[in-house]
Amino acid sequence: MNISIIGATGYAGAELLRLLYTHPRANIIHLTSESSTGKKISAIYPYLRERCDLTLTSLDNIEQIAKDSDFIFICLPHGHAMKVGQLLESKNIRIIDLGADYRFNDISTYEQWYKVKHLHTAASRVYGLAELHREEIKSARIIGNAGCYTTASILALAPLVKNHLIDAKSIIIDAASGVSGAGRSAKQANLLPELYDSFKAYAVANHRHTPEIEQELSILNGENIILNFTPHLVPMARGILSTCYANISPAVDDKTINEAFAKMYGQEFFIRLLGEGGYPTTKNVRGSNICEIGWHIDRRTNRVIVISAIDNLVKGAAGQAVQNFNIACGFDEKTGLDFIPVYP
Amino acid sequence: MNISIIGATGYAGAELLRLLYTHPRANIIHLTSESSTGKKISAIYPYLRERCDLTLTSLDNIEQIAKDSDFIFICLPHGHAMKVGQLLESKNIRIIDLGADYRFNDISTYEQWYKVKHLHTAASRVYGLAELHREEIKSARIIGNAGCYTTASILALAPLVKNHLIDAKSIIIDAASGVSGAGRSAKQANLLPELYDSFKAYAVANHRHTPEIEQELSILNGENIILNFTPHLVPMARGILSTCYANISPAVDDKTINEAFAKMYGQEFFIRLLGEGGYPTTKNVRGSNICEIGWHIDRRTNRVIVISAIDNLVKGAAGQAVQNFNIACGFDEKTGLDFIPVYP
Amino acid sequence: MNISIIGATGYAGAELLRLLYTHPRANIIHLTSESSTGKKISAIYPYLRERCDLTLTSLDNIEQIAKDSDFIFICLPHGHAMKVGQLLESKNIRIIDLGADYRFNDISTYEQWYKVKHLHTAASRVYGLAELHREEIKSARIIGNAGCYTTASILALAPLVKNHLIDAKSIIIDAASGVSGAGRSAKQANLLPELYDSFKAYAVANHRHTPEIEQELSILNGENIILNFTPHLVPMARGILSTCYANISPAVDDKTINEAFAKMYGQEFFIRLLGEGGYPTTKNVRGSNICEIGWHIDRRTNRVIVISAIDNLVKGAAGQAVQNFNIACGFDEKTGLDFIPVYP
Amino acid sequence: MNISIIGATGYAGAELLRLLYTHPRANIIHLTSESSTGKKISAIYPYLRERCDLTLTSLDNIEQIAKDSDFIFICLPHGHAMKVGQLLESKNIRIIDLGADYRFNDISTYEQWYKVKHLHTAASRVYGLAELHREEIKSARIIGNAGCYTTASILALAPLVKNHLIDAKSIIIDAASGVSGAGRSAKQANLLPELYDSFKAYAVANHRHTPEIEQELSILNGENIILNFTPHLVPMARGILSTCYANISPAVDDKTINEAFAKMYGQEFFIRLLGEGGYPTTKNVRGSNICEIGWHIDRRTNRVIVISAIDNLVKGAAGQAVQNFNIACGFDEKTGLDFIPVYP
Repeated sequence: MNISIIGATGYAGAELLRLLYTHPRANIIHLTSESSTGKKISAIYPYLRERCDLTLTSLDNIEQIAKDSDFIFICLPHGHAMKVGQLLESKNIRIIDLGADYRFNDISTYEQWYKVKHLHTAASRVYGLAELHREEIKSARIIGNAGCYTTASILALAPLVKNHLIDAKSIIIDAASGVSGAGRSAKQANLLPELYDSFKAYAVANHRHTPEIEQELSILNGENIILNFTPHLVPMARGILSTCYANISPAVDDKTINEAFAKMYGQEFFIRLLGEGGYPTTKNVRGSNICEIGWHIDRRTNRVIVISAIDNLVKGAAGQAVQNFNIACGFDEKTGLDFIPVYP
Repeated sequence: MNISIIGATGYAGAELLRLLYTHPRANIIHLTSESSTGKKISAIYPYLRERCDLTLTSLDNIEQIAKDSDFIFICLPHGHAMKVGQLLESKNIRIIDLGADYRFNDISTYEQWYKVKHLHTAASRVYGLAELHREEIKSARIIGNAGCYTTASILALAPLVKNHLIDAKSIIIDAASGVSGAGRSAKQANLLPELYDSFKAYAVANHRHTPEIEQELSILNGENIILNFTPHLVPMARGILSTCYANISPAVDDKTINEAFAKMYGQEFFIRLLGEGGYPTTKNVRGSNICEIGWHIDRRTNRVIVISAIDNLVKGAAGQAVQNFNIACGFDEKTGLDFIPVYP
Repeated sequence: MNISIIGATGYAGAELLRLLYTHPRANIIHLTSESSTGKKISAIYPYLRERCDLTLTSLDNIEQIAKDSDFIFICLPHGHAMKVGQLLESKNIRIIDLGADYRFNDISTYEQWYKVKHLHTAASRVYGLAELHREEIKSARIIGNAGCYTTASILALAPLVKNHLIDAKSIIIDAASGVSGAGRSAKQANLLPELYDSFKAYAVANHRHTPEIEQELSILNGENIILNFTPHLVPMARGILSTCYANISPAVDDKTINEAFAKMYGQEFFIRLLGEGGYPTTKNVRGSNICEIGWHIDRRTNRVIVISAIDNLVKGAAGQAVQNFNIACGFDEKTGLDFIPVYP
Repeated sequence: MNISIIGATGYAGAELLRLLYTHPRANIIHLTSESSTGKKISAIYPYLRERCDLTLTSLDNIEQIAKDSDFIFICLPHGHAMKVGQLLESKNIRIIDLGADYRFNDISTYEQWYKVKHLHTAASRVYGLAELHREEIKSARIIGNAGCYTTASILALAPLVKNHLIDAKSIIIDAASGVSGAGRSAKQANLLPELYDSFKAYAVANHRHTPEIEQELSILNGENIILNFTPHLVPMARGILSTCYANISPAVDDKTINEAFAKMYGQEFFIRLLGEGGYPTTKNVRGSNICEIGWHIDRRTNRVIVISAIDNLVKGAAGQAVQNFNIACGFDEKTGLDFIPVYP
């Protein structure tokens, strides 16, 4: 497959390059960057020298890019991807957007949380979380790749919500991310001395991944779920951990909970169930497309605490995109993604 | 005041030495360590050379230590402090225990969570959290210095619980700590390569700080509070952040919440209220005795999210002990504790 | 003493505020910042709230600042401090400049390395490294506070160079610094994800601290010293370690080397000699004004390796400035600086 | 090829498992551990669950292991590997030892630095650094895989030493490593709180990698080289940077230096030449088998400064072993090793 990446100079784009370099079925054709057009990608990321030295082109080239590519990965900020989607509307080309523009079923939810008018309501699109939407991903023209916090959080709660084992009104998600999630643009707040030996929350009660989690959990549950989501910033580079709380519905026993996870994820290659009492750890999935899930049942309080860990740049971004790409192309889903986490 | 430290070689003991070195009213007389008896403290912690070179003695010396000291700080693991307390029962000496042995009003709660028989139910003792028990600290003979997670969590929730502004059954505390909280003993799990670039939860639903938080919040509220507390390990050295969730009681408005914090803490020198919308950050209190508190009111879910930050070794251990010492001695409460956090 | 800080919003300025807050003889009167005029310093550094809430003024106010102050600390980039020095030329006010503008005896050296025309060759000035120039600091009107790498490097080598124990042509200094040394301005290269789990050299053979080290060592030695200095960036916030190499002059024995250090530094409060075989460690001096020095004599190669450690923001900047301030004012040199490092 | 790993539970063994998992020509048959015999490797390293769940056996099984394996990787501490070598003396099996036992041509040098009697002077063995000994690696029965610091240091200096461009008596190597180089055994000194925000040297003038570097550089140069090597510990998990200094021989110009590197490494897949003025960075090679090399020529001092960066666990250990394995087996040298570094 010939693929191109629109917006290749952010961390998600760079991670895509890492994964696609060893993917046996992908040929990287074009990379674009509006701010660095004409430079080599290896001038932006020197670790790519002698491995990937493609010259960055501009979106102005979109006709040629479309002509040369079977698949396009878009790694642009929200609001920009949909413009590319519009331009490609009439082309026979499939798209995976790693941003938020194609994730929402209800455009008004998108517009309300992202404060931007939506311009492109593509007909054939799907929420790009393979474990939930594998069938639709096979044929959708546009895949709205699931977000990082959302992937960890939805996967953690899906079996419980789908099987009505928890009180849907009681969900609280407390999550933490490495700083690569904040992107590569120069900000004083993200300088190493500012964040080193420090921990803090941000975007409490208004983070944009909230409605995305709510959308998917509501679909699974059948009724409208509203929840709390609180992200934190960890002084590390990669990784997301979601710690999710919910009240257990009356009469639900441990066995039922354990079976719900086993049934939903038992055959999933990228989900590693640690079981009841298990402790997912971001280092255990670092560099890989794996999502670890463990849960704890507290009968003192009648709550279940589900914990999940992913690498925010892999299962939370580029790895998920490659997984979706594999499904969309009919490849074995783990093609190019079957490797061991980088530890220590 | 002549003071001695029993168990001076752990991180809490070392932090006490740092704080007492510049305290104008404390003379450090004896330091003990059973594992390093006869060595200088500066052989254990080389950064103390030429500043504090006292030789470590043994608890076998307790008669002499008691004779020479007005105040004794105990930094021993739980189960050991109470034995020292017993030995000093008949002495005219005051004690601050930085461990758990003297924190519980109900001994059976202690025995149930700590799996050890309690040996010394001292009559004159108090839970050593100055903002809640200042008056009793003035005269108590034994002060059971509040724990690290507990200090952050109780201070965050106290105004809401005391004023019945939240549903007492709905409390969830999600907290994270630097690794100094795990102590200085050699454990593979705490090696730098194991924890670096990693984040995880531990002791879910069974951490021993849970009943301590419940005790103090129950007293404030008047009814028995049971809650969830989940600690996480952050790849950093110092700092604790508690993110606390609770359902807001019907009809409670923002103003009432804001006023509850202002009223309870407006005059507290060591509590820095960041107000509604504030984001406490562990780096902003590093090395200091300050507790930062901010809160967020989410009307979508009718929950309040209160966040607090402390330095686990200062307000969470040694600084709190010095604050209690100041109160107990009738000194200005901020004596030796009025300095600026170490940033960056 | 009434003091003011010109350029208070960088890390060095902020560290001065931390140290002066507990200094018994300094009253902070004015703080300036051209980029944040009118804001409170605690809006720039929230950890200062309720401790230091002064409003930042502009250099336009220099007349008033001069009138109100006995001492002025300048924390501006090189090239800017000398303009302030000019403005204050006729005032009866003493100055400590934490930058490079007043460090060089030979202006042409400054101009060559800093690529800027020097504008203010003040008559009464001194290189502000107390251990070498204590007497002149007492009376100089302008003190050119020694740089961070330079302080560590000069102090490591001074006894050997002064006593002609090493081949002056053979000196190589390999040093490493925490990222706070790179300042607080927003640069992509200093984002946490870029530096975390990474180590690199920079400015090889052209770092501007080179001529400063050469100047002071040449004075001590009596002949012109040219050397190699290589800085590295460590993924941490604070600290500098200098590892210095030199060939031992023929016939110099270990005892002579050891005595040279003991004689020069035996009475220095802020120098902690670890002796032959000692290993200075940045964490052992973190937050303090201490410089640790240890050395190793290798008879296989006939080289001496001297290692020194400082906190770049304290003995390498603000602490050194306060030490110089104390000397200049006739205070005990350790006033406000006698505290224990922050560990762990 | 059927391969087995003796001593699989250290970091080097675990990294071998990561690399061999995706190697198309290696089947992992046996893993041994004397301390964890009978456990699954995934119980020791939970990130291996569902990917590599082999049960650890004991060296007592060596007959069976030898029978089942074509190639054996030994990851034991020095002094132990040679005992395994002895046991396998008569077997038709090839060995790569990742420790020091088979690295020295002169056994007395080994015995002097390692303080242990050498027991097995195998006839057919080679120093396992492919860029220097590729031809011998093809046929040697035992490959003494080059050490981590040594690989970085030798590769940096080889072109200069081989071509007599520097004064062989003037070499100084100042290097720094992440903490994974210190192994996985529980030591107080390597706890995260002890090393975080800290930097220090260790083993000055006596590190055991010194004679290994000297051996290889002496062979290249033709005369006996003695040098200084100083390791430092960086608060990070992975990576080694070597900064090497040497006096340039009279009359050597820049072009000659540049050409020496180009000629020696121009065709090397795993060496990335950054050229004169280049800055190798450990993050740029993290997780990969690449060695970055850059150099700086200082005409003020007539010295060359060569800098090299590797991942200590890959090109410094397991990756190098796989590279040697590929050569020994006649596979393409980059088989299973051609991937992009993990960044950020």
